[in-house]
Amino acid sequence: MFDTQVSLAKKGITTPQMEAVAKQEGVAIDKIMEGVSKGEIVIPCNKKRRLKGPRAIGKGLFVKVNTNIGTSSDHIELSEEIAKLNVALEAGTDTVMDLSTGGDLDNIRRTLIKNTPVPFGTVPIYQAAIETVQMKGGIVKMTVEDIFNVIERQAEDGVDFMTIHCGVTLQSLERLRRQGRLTHIVSRGGAFLTTWMIYNEKENPLYQYYDRLLELARKYDITLSLGDGLRPGSLPDATDRAQIEELILLGELTKSARQEDVQVMIEGPGHVPLDQIETNVLLEKKLCNGAPFYVLGPLVTDIASGYDHIAAAIGGAMAALAGADFLCYVTPAEHLRLPTIEDVREGVIATKIAAHAADLARGNPKAWESDYRMSKARGELDWKTQIELSIDPKKARSYRESRRPKISDVCTMCGKYCAIKLVKEYLGCA
Amino acid sequence: MFDTQVSLAKKGITTPQMEAVAKQEGVAIDKIMEGVSKGEIVIPCNKKRRLKGPRAIGKGLFVKVNTNIGTSSDHIELSEEIAKLNVALEAGTDTVMDLSTGGDLDNIRRTLIKNTPVPFGTVPIYQAAIETVQMKGGIVKMTVEDIFNVIERQAEDGVDFMTIHCGVTLQSLERLRRQGRLTHIVSRGGAFLTTWMIYNEKENPLYQYYDRLLELARKYDITLSLGDGLRPGSLPDATDRAQIEELILLGELTKSARQEDVQVMIEGPGHVPLDQIETNVLLEKKLCNGAPFYVLGPLVTDIASGYDHIAAAIGGAMAALAGADFLCYVTPAEHLRLPTIEDVREGVIATKIAAHAADLARGNPKAWESDYRMSKARGELDWKTQIELSIDPKKARSYRESRRPKISDVCTMCGKYCAIKLVKEYLGCA
Repeated sequence: MFDTQVSLAKKGITTPQMEAVAKQEGVAIDKIMEGVSKGEIVIPCNKKRRLKGPRAIGKGLFVKVNTNIGTSSDHIELSEEIAKLNVALEAGTDTVMDLSTGGDLDNIRRTLIKNTPVPFGTVPIYQAAIETVQMKGGIVKMTVEDIFNVIERQAEDGVDFMTIHCGVTLQSLERLRRQGRLTHIVSRGGAFLTTWMIYNEKENPLYQYYDRLLELARKYDITLSLGDGLRPGSLPDATDRAQIEELILLGELTKSARQEDVQVMIEGPGHVPLDQIETNVLLEKKLCNGAPFYVLGPLVTDIASGYDHIAAAIGGAMAALAGADFLCYVTPAEHLRLPTIEDVREGVIATKIAAHAADLARGNPKAWESDYRMSKARGELDWKTQIELSIDPKKARSYRESRRPKISDVCTMCGKYCAIKLVKEYLGCA
Repeated sequence: MFDTQVSLAKKGITTPQMEAVAKQEGVAIDKIMEGVSKGEIVIPCNKKRRLKGPRAIGKGLFVKVNTNIGTSSDHIELSEEIAKLNVALEAGTDTVMDLSTGGDLDNIRRTLIKNTPVPFGTVPIYQAAIETVQMKGGIVKMTVEDIFNVIERQAEDGVDFMTIHCGVTLQSLERLRRQGRLTHIVSRGGAFLTTWMIYNEKENPLYQYYDRLLELARKYDITLSLGDGLRPGSLPDATDRAQIEELILLGELTKSARQEDVQVMIEGPGHVPLDQIETNVLLEKKLCNGAPFYVLGPLVTDIASGYDHIAAAIGGAMAALAGADFLCYVTPAEHLRLPTIEDVREGVIATKIAAHAADLARGNPKAWESDYRMSKARGELDWKTQIELSIDPKKARSYRESRRPKISDVCTMCGKYCAIKLVKEYLGCA
């Protein structure tokens, strides 16, 4: 049998990746190994490549942030995707997913992965569906071999984690049909598979041949990110029977994966009212036995088009406070267009703020260091340090410099009536 | 005795303002009157002006958003402040506060108030302190009469609510001194008063002569917004003894105000870790007997300079979910500069998203209408309606139009592989 981070952790063997993430997180390696053994922590890292910047995702660790990049059939510009990748890395993304659906998908993926030092993810069903359309004229003609060929091709390229929509089954679709929804299916992978299943009157191959998937995942140590193909696409549809049916299935599939020492995390919604987020996290943790939870947003309103990064930051912070481990970024372009380079930057930073807010609330001592130092600098009117410690020093500096104060140690908000300066001067610093 | 919204509500007399807000909120007027009688709802509305757009703030109502505008000693441009006012109103702010500290303060206030159809607030201690500096050379030379003269002058101009820092007392300052802080005092009003008190070795006049303040408030029906002059200015300082000491005092002052049928709300932090927000709201509601809670942010991290509107949207949504009634906006310029017109727009919209997310979570049926209609339009690929229902239709339209899809009913994110379109076409709409 092939070894994975899980099988090694179970044997008590440390890997370079475990060592790296233990150092990064400031936690004992034993804690990492225990988490990996139990499946509460994953370290996405394909054996085919040497990941310069491994990341661990899960219980007791920093909340991580993922950035989706990639072409669409309407906009194919590899250089722009490379620029997005660089902007995302600069802004501190922990992982990157290539969701390309337009152009030479193999070449795009290989180019991007080569330039990505952190875990790299994909959704192989996209490529399988698109190649089928190109070669046979329709998604419904996709074969089981088409799907697994793409998975293996991407595995060979070194993809570290893959979103696999195993939970869209005849049974969960039946639940969806009985119930009805405002926004039906909003997952592309879910839509491809649903189309295929209904037309062919067959079970989802990724569910039916899940053992074959586990074999591949074990061989390359690919972390499976079990996708939520039936995630609600609107607040009125949130936490409905179809969503929870799928989550139950994903829980069962988590158990099977763990038996094979395959790393698994669970993808979650999407669109969730603020008061349902905690319940969604608790359900995932219970139904999937503590598997790391990877949430897309969640968006806390449906009307924030143009500002969905803010709606997602609110939802993401709340989810991470409740125990979610991994936040997929959302950009201001969500629901409107393929994101631009600037959209990517704004999306990553908003999501990093959400993750950091949760890290603080969860009592992560390393996260508190930055806020402590920033507040000390603020109390001392030390502007140089304040700018350096800002989440985006370039923006902070340009804001400050765009309106220069008359007195150098304050800002133009309060000018000479700066509260901190007044108190410092009159009271000899409180 | 002068009547106020409270005294009238207690007598069972409805006012035009009560009728207007009942209609606006979609709630029975009895509920408004009950809330106003108990002090759980305020309707800031100075008798000296006819407010075109009154607002109610408090229990069971839409969460409201305030926009701070105004000059500083470093940047005085009345036309710019008028432009900020208009942008804030266009973005849907519920109230406006003029925090000007530079230029001809009377003229600026009178110009702004004339153009503001919604409740208008001020912080009179700013003007009292600044005029003292100009006329006598130092804040410490301010007299009790100087303070009350300004309050009355602003009352005569029709100011609907005033932030008054009564809770900065010799006792609460002593608590602060015993404790120590990273960021001392970050409230301008708090800093002015502290400076004055320590130098003159006297009690805060706004505390000592609180009865005189209540008389004025009753005469004009000014809503007192009891300021938190000792609010922490950093996460490490949050929820500390000085803050809670001040909140206890504000609770006592709320009781006195209610005895005089004066409307009161309570101002809150500031900088609060995500996990302490619920406690802060609960404490305010208990210690101040259900008075409406007006929070400044709160910011959930100290390092988001340049993006503090996002840190505040996270905190504001969480606070409002826990029961806060009124969110003071924060702009991307916070901690860096006096906000520009564009900063104001971004700040209002981010805060509106937070308020709306909480309205949804609190089960406000009118709030749900927009998300339901948006989701229906999204499920039907009805782009015209989607754009119209967006929180900022102009931005949503420009995003969509900047990257036109090849097929008109999708967007460039997924192009022809749009999940909703696929499912609609293949399954006859799930």
